Amino acid sequence: MIALLTDFGLRDHYVAAMKGVMLGICPRVSFLDISHEIAAQDVAAGALELESVVPYLPAGTVVLAVVDPGVGSSRRGLVAEAGALSFVGPDNGLLVPAMTVCGSWRAVSLEQPRLARPTVASTFEGRDRFAPAAAWLASGVALDAFGPAALDLVPCRLPAAVESAAGIDGQVVRVDHFGNLVTNIPAAALMRLGEAAVVITAGEARVHGIVRTYSDAPDGALCALLGSTGHLEIATAGGSAAAQLRAGRWLSVQVRRRAGA
Amino acid sequence: MIALLTDFGLRDHYVAAMKGVMLGICPRVSFLDISHEIAAQDVAAGALELESVVPYLPAGTVVLAVVDPGVGSSRRGLVAEAGALSFVGPDNGLLVPAMTVCGSWRAVSLEQPRLARPTVASTFEGRDRFAPAAAWLASGVALDAFGPAALDLVPCRLPAAVESAAGIDGQVVRVDHFGNLVTNIPAAALMRLGEAAVVITAGEARVHGIVRTYSDAPDGALCALLGSTGHLEIATAGGSAAAQLRAGRWLSVQVRRRAGA
Amino acid sequence: MIALLTDFGLRDHYVAAMKGVMLGICPRVSFLDISHEIAAQDVAAGALELESVVPYLPAGTVVLAVVDPGVGSSRRGLVAEAGALSFVGPDNGLLVPAMTVCGSWRAVSLEQPRLARPTVASTFEGRDRFAPAAAWLASGVALDAFGPAALDLVPCRLPAAVESAAGIDGQVVRVDHFGNLVTNIPAAALMRLGEAAVVITAGEARVHGIVRTYSDAPDGALCALLGSTGHLEIATAGGSAAAQLRAGRWLSVQVRRRAGA
Repeated sequence: MIALLTDFGLRDHYVAAMKGVMLGICPRVSFLDISHEIAAQDVAAGALELESVVPYLPAGTVVLAVVDPGVGSSRRGLVAEAGALSFVGPDNGLLVPAMTVCGSWRAVSLEQPRLARPTVASTFEGRDRFAPAAAWLASGVALDAFGPAALDLVPCRLPAAVESAAGIDGQVVRVDHFGNLVTNIPAAALMRLGEAAVVITAGEARVHGIVRTYSDAPDGALCALLGSTGHLEIATAGGSAAAQLRAGRWLSVQVRRRAGA
Repeated sequence: MIALLTDFGLRDHYVAAMKGVMLGICPRVSFLDISHEIAAQDVAAGALELESVVPYLPAGTVVLAVVDPGVGSSRRGLVAEAGALSFVGPDNGLLVPAMTVCGSWRAVSLEQPRLARPTVASTFEGRDRFAPAAAWLASGVALDAFGPAALDLVPCRLPAAVESAAGIDGQVVRVDHFGNLVTNIPAAALMRLGEAAVVITAGEARVHGIVRTYSDAPDGALCALLGSTGHLEIATAGGSAAAQLRAGRWLSVQVRRRAGA
Repeated sequence: MIALLTDFGLRDHYVAAMKGVMLGICPRVSFLDISHEIAAQDVAAGALELESVVPYLPAGTVVLAVVDPGVGSSRRGLVAEAGALSFVGPDNGLLVPAMTVCGSWRAVSLEQPRLARPTVASTFEGRDRFAPAAAWLASGVALDAFGPAALDLVPCRLPAAVESAAGIDGQVVRVDHFGNLVTNIPAAALMRLGEAAVVITAGEARVHGIVRTYSDAPDGALCALLGSTGHLEIATAGGSAAAQLRAGRWLSVQVRRRAGA
């Protein structure tokens, strides 16, 4: 199976062209669409969705991810194995968080021209280089056939939450379809601070409190909870926290010990 | 095959996480996406799409539907068999109209923890409880293995059209992608009244007449027809009735005998 | 495999109803979604996406395309073989460019009622006539079983670029998800003119120059390049040309020999 993540959208024929190319190489492959609605050229957003989903993909899945502002330039293409999954995509930080979640990994530079389409459009390497590589990988071609070892991968520039004596300083890193504001503050950091004894501020707004699920807070109340990816999340019960706060990515979120606690 | 309907949208990784979980349990399953664009937490809208599509699903399909404002609360989860289909989802009215369309049904309460993921996120039971249940069901696990019989299901609060001596009083219950206003007035009720001899009003607007298909009305004319789900539909030929009337769900639609008819 | 292109959107159950019908006829079929986000009733836009993707579809694919303002009217339905692919859809120009790209073709009029659903909704022939035809075709039913030969197909009204001594006069025919303005000027025409020695104007705006890929132009610069479908494309490096020029389909694009070249 090949799982796809791109910023191509679903209106144009681009995703279907990639799938057609892959089916031409590996007719029995099936596809799992992770998302094609990553904001255009937003590598960090793509990296985060990818990192969030890989724990749920079956062993053996080939992940093909293309969010690629540098398409057609000299930036490297990557083929990698990480834990029980394989990855294909540009070397721009998109794959790194997901590969790291999977465990130890090994990457090569995608260079072998015989594993690409005969002519490569300089504006659509997704179709002409990455999709063929994913299909060959799914067909059983070995990692080393694609090119030489790739070291010093381009890192992913996502901010990390900072823990201090005062508490935790994090940011909103993802706004989901429901308007939930997902932060980079991991559950474990919150546990270290003591979940019950904290005050949470999102931007300028004081958060009502930590609840177990959305419907535990009064309708319309801004609340915090441990979301499904294991990070602190700011939500509005029965509504959208993004709309209520008119806020989005990079909003600062502070967790402080309650005075006297 | 597992058919999916959610309000998760297609941008986030949520649907892919559910599919990954199901493939981990039942590797040979295939998926049919009904819709993931149900308006957030709009149980009635989801129920109506589900009811509309089930007559076209192949026998043996497992329907997994998650529009679930009460996620993580004490509301019940359901596993059901109805006619030739099976259903998994929250007990909030979402499944009831579709199950009823399928014929006689039998439901159990989804309680068996061994048929869920080991840890269940209180904000994503779709991934951790409902998706595993659907995959186990597709794998052949019997209905009674999921939990005790579920009676007194939460009903679906969709208004029904009212027939009287004067005619039929209904509502728009669904606005489709083309701006067609689909009502809750069934073809049969219209037939009982005598299709030819009626006057139709949508909100304050007089409808041009009943036509067989869109292109039978002059361009831009507001017309009525029997839509593909067997209900009266208000449409604008070559345009969008929703835009023309600036109207949407719950708009009142009246069918009256023509004076003298 | 059946590849689908429609203007039905992904919110309603319409695409799933078509797929359910096809699975009922041909249980082992798999689907490739080309696009369901073609602008409502925009036959030319659908034709162009279809033409762009067919070179990448595997041999044997059945293409089911429904953008059909004349649904339910007397307009003809078509079933066709073209090169290694088959096609099903309305006779309104939607299929013609794609069929032509595939090589020589042969079409019949879709008339055999036994290869449709027993009752055909006059507003949803996609579900009741075209989808069954595609599924029967995928099941091995021969072309001639669907109806008599169809000649004089309705052509597709897409403007063609005009070459003259002065240069090339074309139009934007497609605006993609990234805001790239794809023209009807083929690479070959540009080559005949001499790629290096030209001045390109998009509407009133002078284009910076022809580059090989987006990142070869300075950020924010309006540039031209040969896009992935082999046509001249106007793009904004790191941005959206459509937004920058506030322009869309049918914008005139002129290519002129540079003075003195």
